[in-house]
Amino acid sequence: MRVIILGADGYLGWPTCMYFSAKGHEVVGIDNYFRRQAALELDCEPLIPTPNLTQRARIWKELTGRDIYVHIGDVINYPFLKELFERYRPEVVVHYAEQPSAPYSMIDRDKAAFTVQNNLISTLNVAYAVKEVVPECPIIKIGTMGEYGTPNIDIEEGWIEIEHKGKKDKFLFPRQASSLYHTTKIQDTDMLWFYVRTWGIRVTDLMQGPVYGISTEEADKDERLMPNFHYDEIFGTILNRFVVQAVVGHPLTVYGKGKQIRGYINLKDTLACVYLAALHPPKMGELRIFNQITETFSVLELAEKVQKVGERLGYRVEVKHYENPRVEKEEHYYNPKYTGLRELGLKPHFLTDNVLEKMFKVVEKYKGHINQFAIFRGIKWK
Amino acid sequence: MRVIILGADGYLGWPTCMYFSAKGHEVVGIDNYFRRQAALELDCEPLIPTPNLTQRARIWKELTGRDIYVHIGDVINYPFLKELFERYRPEVVVHYAEQPSAPYSMIDRDKAAFTVQNNLISTLNVAYAVKEVVPECPIIKIGTMGEYGTPNIDIEEGWIEIEHKGKKDKFLFPRQASSLYHTTKIQDTDMLWFYVRTWGIRVTDLMQGPVYGISTEEADKDERLMPNFHYDEIFGTILNRFVVQAVVGHPLTVYGKGKQIRGYINLKDTLACVYLAALHPPKMGELRIFNQITETFSVLELAEKVQKVGERLGYRVEVKHYENPRVEKEEHYYNPKYTGLRELGLKPHFLTDNVLEKMFKVVEKYKGHINQFAIFRGIKWK
Repeated sequence: MRVIILGADGYLGWPTCMYFSAKGHEVVGIDNYFRRQAALELDCEPLIPTPNLTQRARIWKELTGRDIYVHIGDVINYPFLKELFERYRPEVVVHYAEQPSAPYSMIDRDKAAFTVQNNLISTLNVAYAVKEVVPECPIIKIGTMGEYGTPNIDIEEGWIEIEHKGKKDKFLFPRQASSLYHTTKIQDTDMLWFYVRTWGIRVTDLMQGPVYGISTEEADKDERLMPNFHYDEIFGTILNRFVVQAVVGHPLTVYGKGKQIRGYINLKDTLACVYLAALHPPKMGELRIFNQITETFSVLELAEKVQKVGERLGYRVEVKHYENPRVEKEEHYYNPKYTGLRELGLKPHFLTDNVLEKMFKVVEKYKGHINQFAIFRGIKWK
Repeated sequence: MRVIILGADGYLGWPTCMYFSAKGHEVVGIDNYFRRQAALELDCEPLIPTPNLTQRARIWKELTGRDIYVHIGDVINYPFLKELFERYRPEVVVHYAEQPSAPYSMIDRDKAAFTVQNNLISTLNVAYAVKEVVPECPIIKIGTMGEYGTPNIDIEEGWIEIEHKGKKDKFLFPRQASSLYHTTKIQDTDMLWFYVRTWGIRVTDLMQGPVYGISTEEADKDERLMPNFHYDEIFGTILNRFVVQAVVGHPLTVYGKGKQIRGYINLKDTLACVYLAALHPPKMGELRIFNQITETFSVLELAEKVQKVGERLGYRVEVKHYENPRVEKEEHYYNPKYTGLRELGLKPHFLTDNVLEKMFKVVEKYKGHINQFAIFRGIKWK
């Protein structure tokens, strides 16, 4: 199939490009290098130097003989996006082109406004490009488990039937997020749900938990193809951050009590989930939602896993409770359902000691690159 | 009290300025003239020529001796907004500065993008200006009953307790709207709810139904102070449109079956509701939601009321079913609750024949201004 991947330079974007390409699909990768520029501005560049997207596509071509077509530009720019849709007529579009960081969205008003505008206008443009150029093309969008927050009821996969005063109806599962970034993901779901109902387009919304890992089958072929691995407070996901903290001797930054429970997923499984969603599109006029996680842990449990493996490898790993810069419940009920992707065929890679050990080995190799100033700044929600 | 009214040139904005001013409050009115410019562009100017905002404030001053401070500029421009907050330090802010038209938001991608960006960045800026300058200042934002759509369960005032698999929690009432404009109102509610929880600011969200009417105590003093009365498909609300259609001999434009039921409110009551919300602010950290309607009618019932009064006044009024350009349920359950504002003290002006007759009389006077081309274009949702 012909797939357009928006946000192709990202932590998920580039591995997804290679994953589809390796399976023989025609891949078009689009990115505006927002994250690279923000990482420069905020002095939080990734651990491993990553060639730019055009260079990586060239390296991939040398290694595999396969083309990944790269276009650098902004999904916010509708004529640019529409022209690419007309040129390639995609059979599936994967929308990763959102500002992905909760702390970034809380730094100040301008970064908040950027997040709202980027995430919602990009989603609007994708919906319009599909409707105007390839109405049958399924959209796969990355949502987040953070849309649901931490309600006191079981979290279903996107939908809930509510019985109220003797009558029933089915609704999007109630959502209240704990950052502006996560709120824009509630908003983009609402926007796509509106256009799904109105235009009859089809969308898969993948409510993903924090992703961890650095290894994918394709990236392991050549270190220049590795994902951009962030370990900083702004763009780094929690487990990746903890491993780097352990290696460099920084205390693991547990916010508050650390009893916050979330669902997690290995980078390899993210790729498989997106691929499964592409292979099995929803019906026209359907918004299909999956909870894209494979297991749940509290922050403390994650820290203790990293500590255990780190100490076995000879590191002294301290787990430290920091005053929580975020506004979130530190103890709460959490019971999300996540069977849909398993039913589509997902075979999870769970968070074993072996997986963690391999992450340590990669990070050790790049230890000299670690910028301690990027690890914790305590960007405050208030 | 000192009140900043954003969108002060609008159908609701200007009457609200006068309402607060007449009661002795200090009023600052801000507008970017978006609606005036869009009405020019789309050839749908209001029925009654309205002096610009600065001129109207001058006329009001001559008549009453009271100042309304006018600033022309864009709420999207944060430095502009923040500077005004610093200068006036408002004790309440009324946020009407959103693109208010469902059909406008469905015309094309650019108008959709404008709607998203204008409505969400303006709301973001208001939240930031309050937080950074006057954290105790209550925000009053106009939402819409359209956020709820037409669910098969009773509509509560903003919140619902859900029991699911033996556990309970309280959530925003489920919302799914039937235009992009209405969807941006779901999105701005979610955004404000996030900042209410995170920063502890306070917000009243008024879920308003379509407003009708042209008369307010203040506007009736001088025709130059009348609200801008739109009767076109884009900016006109349904009852106002029907009255103009009846006067000019255009068939009443009932979309589809006409069994769509909505809640309605007289312009006079809108002013009273906003004022009551300002007099009785919510607690810090509270998002308070009221359903701002006073009675419900189907579209056909409205058309028949207009027909009856019109014929009594000597007009031949035809009710015609048009192919519905919108995507919406034409028959549905509808049982919204709307007691909160009554409990705060609202004394409703219901839609009597007498109210309709007065609207006919005003419209008759300006009959020569009616632009028949603006009445129905059939802007399609698909």
